Amino acid sequence: MKREIYLEITPLNEALEKWLRRLESQGFLKAFPGEKVMVSESLGRITAEPVIARLSSPFYHSSAMDGYAVKYQETFGASEISPKKLKLGEQAVYVDTGDPMPDVFNTVIMIEDVNVIRCQAPGVRYQEDEYIEIISPATPWQNVRVIGEDIVATELILPENHRIMPVDVGAMLAGGYVDINVRRKPKIVIIPTGTEIVEPGSNLKRGDIIEYNSRVLGGLVSEWGGEPVRFRIIPDDIKKLKNAISEAHKVGDMIVVNAGASAGSEDFTSRAISETGEIIFHGVSIKPGKPVIAGIVGNKPVLGIPGYPVSAFITFNLFAKPVIYKWQGMEMAPPEILQAVLSRQAASTLGQEEFLRVKIGKVGDKFIAAPVSRGAGVLMSLVRADGFVRIPAMSEGIGAGSEVDVELLRTKNEIENTIVCIGSHDNALDLLSNSLKKKYPKLSLSSAHAGSMGGLLALKKREAHIAGTHLLDEETGEYNIPFIKKLLPDKKIILVNLVYREQGLLVLKGNPKNIKGFEDLTRNDVVFINRQAGAGTRLLTDKHLRELRIKPEDVKGYEREEYTHMGVASAALTGIADTGLAILASAKALGLDFIPVAKERYDLAIPFEFYDTDMIKALLSIIREDSEFRAMVAKLGGYDVSDMGKVMYDG
Amino acid sequence: MKREIYLEITPLNEALEKWLRRLESQGFLKAFPGEKVMVSESLGRITAEPVIARLSSPFYHSSAMDGYAVKYQETFGASEISPKKLKLGEQAVYVDTGDPMPDVFNTVIMIEDVNVIRCQAPGVRYQEDEYIEIISPATPWQNVRVIGEDIVATELILPENHRIMPVDVGAMLAGGYVDINVRRKPKIVIIPTGTEIVEPGSNLKRGDIIEYNSRVLGGLVSEWGGEPVRFRIIPDDIKKLKNAISEAHKVGDMIVVNAGASAGSEDFTSRAISETGEIIFHGVSIKPGKPVIAGIVGNKPVLGIPGYPVSAFITFNLFAKPVIYKWQGMEMAPPEILQAVLSRQAASTLGQEEFLRVKIGKVGDKFIAAPVSRGAGVLMSLVRADGFVRIPAMSEGIGAGSEVDVELLRTKNEIENTIVCIGSHDNALDLLSNSLKKKYPKLSLSSAHAGSMGGLLALKKREAHIAGTHLLDEETGEYNIPFIKKLLPDKKIILVNLVYREQGLLVLKGNPKNIKGFEDLTRNDVVFINRQAGAGTRLLTDKHLRELRIKPEDVKGYEREEYTHMGVASAALTGIADTGLAILASAKALGLDFIPVAKERYDLAIPFEFYDTDMIKALLSIIREDSEFRAMVAKLGGYDVSDMGKVMYDG
Repeated sequence: MKREIYLEITPLNEALEKWLRRLESQGFLKAFPGEKVMVSESLGRITAEPVIARLSSPFYHSSAMDGYAVKYQETFGASEISPKKLKLGEQAVYVDTGDPMPDVFNTVIMIEDVNVIRCQAPGVRYQEDEYIEIISPATPWQNVRVIGEDIVATELILPENHRIMPVDVGAMLAGGYVDINVRRKPKIVIIPTGTEIVEPGSNLKRGDIIEYNSRVLGGLVSEWGGEPVRFRIIPDDIKKLKNAISEAHKVGDMIVVNAGASAGSEDFTSRAISETGEIIFHGVSIKPGKPVIAGIVGNKPVLGIPGYPVSAFITFNLFAKPVIYKWQGMEMAPPEILQAVLSRQAASTLGQEEFLRVKIGKVGDKFIAAPVSRGAGVLMSLVRADGFVRIPAMSEGIGAGSEVDVELLRTKNEIENTIVCIGSHDNALDLLSNSLKKKYPKLSLSSAHAGSMGGLLALKKREAHIAGTHLLDEETGEYNIPFIKKLLPDKKIILVNLVYREQGLLVLKGNPKNIKGFEDLTRNDVVFINRQAGAGTRLLTDKHLRELRIKPEDVKGYEREEYTHMGVASAALTGIADTGLAILASAKALGLDFIPVAKERYDLAIPFEFYDTDMIKALLSIIREDSEFRAMVAKLGGYDVSDMGKVMYDG
Repeated sequence: MKREIYLEITPLNEALEKWLRRLESQGFLKAFPGEKVMVSESLGRITAEPVIARLSSPFYHSSAMDGYAVKYQETFGASEISPKKLKLGEQAVYVDTGDPMPDVFNTVIMIEDVNVIRCQAPGVRYQEDEYIEIISPATPWQNVRVIGEDIVATELILPENHRIMPVDVGAMLAGGYVDINVRRKPKIVIIPTGTEIVEPGSNLKRGDIIEYNSRVLGGLVSEWGGEPVRFRIIPDDIKKLKNAISEAHKVGDMIVVNAGASAGSEDFTSRAISETGEIIFHGVSIKPGKPVIAGIVGNKPVLGIPGYPVSAFITFNLFAKPVIYKWQGMEMAPPEILQAVLSRQAASTLGQEEFLRVKIGKVGDKFIAAPVSRGAGVLMSLVRADGFVRIPAMSEGIGAGSEVDVELLRTKNEIENTIVCIGSHDNALDLLSNSLKKKYPKLSLSSAHAGSMGGLLALKKREAHIAGTHLLDEETGEYNIPFIKKLLPDKKIILVNLVYREQGLLVLKGNPKNIKGFEDLTRNDVVFINRQAGAGTRLLTDKHLRELRIKPEDVKGYEREEYTHMGVASAALTGIADTGLAILASAKALGLDFIPVAKERYDLAIPFEFYDTDMIKALLSIIREDSEFRAMVAKLGGYDVSDMGKVMYDG
């Protein structure tokens, strides 16, 4: 079992410098020469030469007003007492805005300032006895757009290396250009590899992996101004991969192989690059993204991009983007940075620079950054992330409450229009998020699943606008209110019902293990999947176990925790466990059977300080008035929406 | 001469409300239904439905590591003292990262933590006596990517009304989508009108106007996510225009007629709209942009957009953009606002909301906004502008030094990377601007022409980073230094030479009026064109007149002022004047003859506080080291570049 060993693990800065300096030294980083395009097709392209006006605009004197062109010398002495008459057709000529100035005239009097004295004979344009009468003298060239008023021939309209905007297109046309030289778009060939990789839409079988990285990377190339060229999928076959690289070398300016960059036994990329060209480095001390390869084949840069989607995204941004910009004569804008407070600790491996994905919300006047899933394979962590926090290689992590610099993936405006919901997970929140965006496109709902208790604590720490909670007080039988009083004694909280919902044990279709209730959890052949501490569902589990006098240590799997109902359902579906407690909606979603255990109340806790904000008002209008939303929730199954939107407590 | 009178002049807010409310009430503002596109082609499009995962990702358990799949139950009790042996092929199977978990196994041990004990017989995969040895027990499902780790089927991947980013494309493919519903792109038909309007590239004759507005408006449509459809140019013929509108009605979602919206005698747009449909308003109290028309033809919104390019840009932004966004289910992001200090007073007409274009520079820690040309016909004012300041209708203007809110057209980052040069105009500055952007793509040079004196005063007020100056002290014969000492006594200024240049009188080719020098300016048949007060060239003019004892009132045209050398050249070329004082480069640019008068020194004055900033260092590196720049300046003619970059004074 031969294993490719990383040639070295290079620190990020060193790797970047090595890469760019090497390309630079061989002359591979120069801005591309221009290609001719029609000015009318040049929007968004980059100028490859200075655009210098060939023509003045206007290129003749023209009237700037509707009025009469006259000679200013003939208007001297005009006044209200002694108006001056000018003969039409001879001393004065009518001009529309934009009309060229008739040759002998040198000023224009606005039509509003003129009295036309005309005979009544119809159908004749100028009569012998038609005059205009003016009551004040004109100054030379008044109301005239003189040649070059807008653009003077030889003037610089656009410098080289300028991204063309809509108004620039107009200015170039006005300046006498029909076509111009713009930077050729860098062609980036992306080669997806892997015997297990299949095209989207294929008939899937176990072991297949849908190929999507090439589309993500291709999308980035397009956004950066390049042109992605996607090759067909190459199986794990060194000869075929080498052929593909040779083919790519003919077509593209950069070759990107994805993946096969990690050190597994089927990883041919580094071999293929070193056998067709040269490896500059293999392995960078970043997380995720470590197994990235950079090399040169012929005179073209080659990247071996790791297969995990987050690794692929990060390494492609780090190593491909600066090159694609340089080729266009552009420099990358620095990322927009937002200062935020990290909501919980993020430990990190010493010696690796980590790119931590975070969601950000503005709660009160603080921006709160909450880390999202850190797995390199979790693409959704990028879909959901608002930005990155870089944890330096020399750090073991960042403590909760620390100020961090977030490199934004979205605009600050989008973040400021995001409602942060932390707390118990419920499938209705997905629908709420969708209905909110449908009715109020500028607003977003971001929900993090931290359990009911976690949600209330987040309100206490002012890290969320609302919290989803379904905490049953065993003593009083009351939901949520006792917990709010205890945990948030100084905070005025309004509790709005979202749903009543059924909780139950999820089992495979047909209930093969014949599970009837919590009493079966002590059976030797039954593996349970639990929820995390602080989750309302965990409290419900513990309450039932206590009532049945079952000790946690007698429940197999009690220690394995999931964070969402769907996580529990997924575990039950896939055989990780035989059963777990979750809501009916999650069972229906995955086609599981459901053994009802309890009906419970699920509320949204909203601090008074946010209750009257526009964002929360919009959210409540969906909950209270949007019948489509209500119907969709009911359709999930196991929900009672009769109190949806009702204020349950106003403390 | 029948004239179309504005039906009314509506205040902006009222007009906008009328327009949107009317469209809304007729159901014309609803988000468009979806159209199917391939997910791989969906980048940048807007989702027209929630995208809910059809497939989990991964959809089978797979190994997250290179290693061995085993049953965790069989690893109990393994330790360094008593390692546990597992038989290959039976109790353990090798798996690469991404391989599906073999059915009976439920955990993976990393290859690094395993000792493989094998017989040496080659060519056989598993021998009877091959084992792995482990020294610690495994926990269930460790190093396994379980089903749904990334995406759980039924989970919301993207809400409706979401603009699709590269990572979203990947998530949709992973979630089992091959195609999705996205909003149809709004089709905006743009009809250029006017008998005088010609296509770019036509053989131009006096009176022709190159059609470019449709390309600017079309570019905006593309940027806003729509699809522009440009019709051919329609002459001023009411029947043809009405036909074009009917045709457009069949093709597009919105009809835009440009121009013919002002009240001149050839303006057919309002007639064509009212005869084919209905006018909602005609005329809005904004400047520029007053003559805009909004109407409805059939069930389609129609805009009559004014012909002046700045008016067209502003009114199209105000009235078309919100509709195009609504149709896509999107809300416009509010413009980015930057607080800046207005560098000079801007008077404004009471009763009209004015959109003042400004250039912005960050000088020290203040953002300075300088108004640029206010003419509705000056497209270059938009090309050069960094943003708009809105002067309310109820205001008569804004005083110099006032804090203003600027709606940005560029990013703050671009503005922060702009060197602000105020002062005397020289053609070499255009070249400098170009060479700077070529070598340092992220930097820009913005030059405003305020004369040498204006430049030094701008340094005093900290409104510029550098000032171009060529002020001759008559007493000492010294350039610039006496003025710096007098005007900026408390400021340390470094003076760097840019060029020596020739000033002279510009006359038409062949010098038809036989002008030999300043003495000819008193002739009755000679009209002079002057430069503004405070310009170095104005001082030079005044010095020569004084030496010749010529009184300004004896010079015809002395009171007419231009702000740049090119403005003077243009006036001489076009017959506005017979001659004026300017540099040789401007004569050469426009093919004029040149009567030399003086050679003068042109320096850049740089306050010490900015001298060592990266931006200024970059600029000085161009001036001092860029031989291409030096050669291009020399080629302009009339320049001596021998001291280019030399420090002339270090005060």
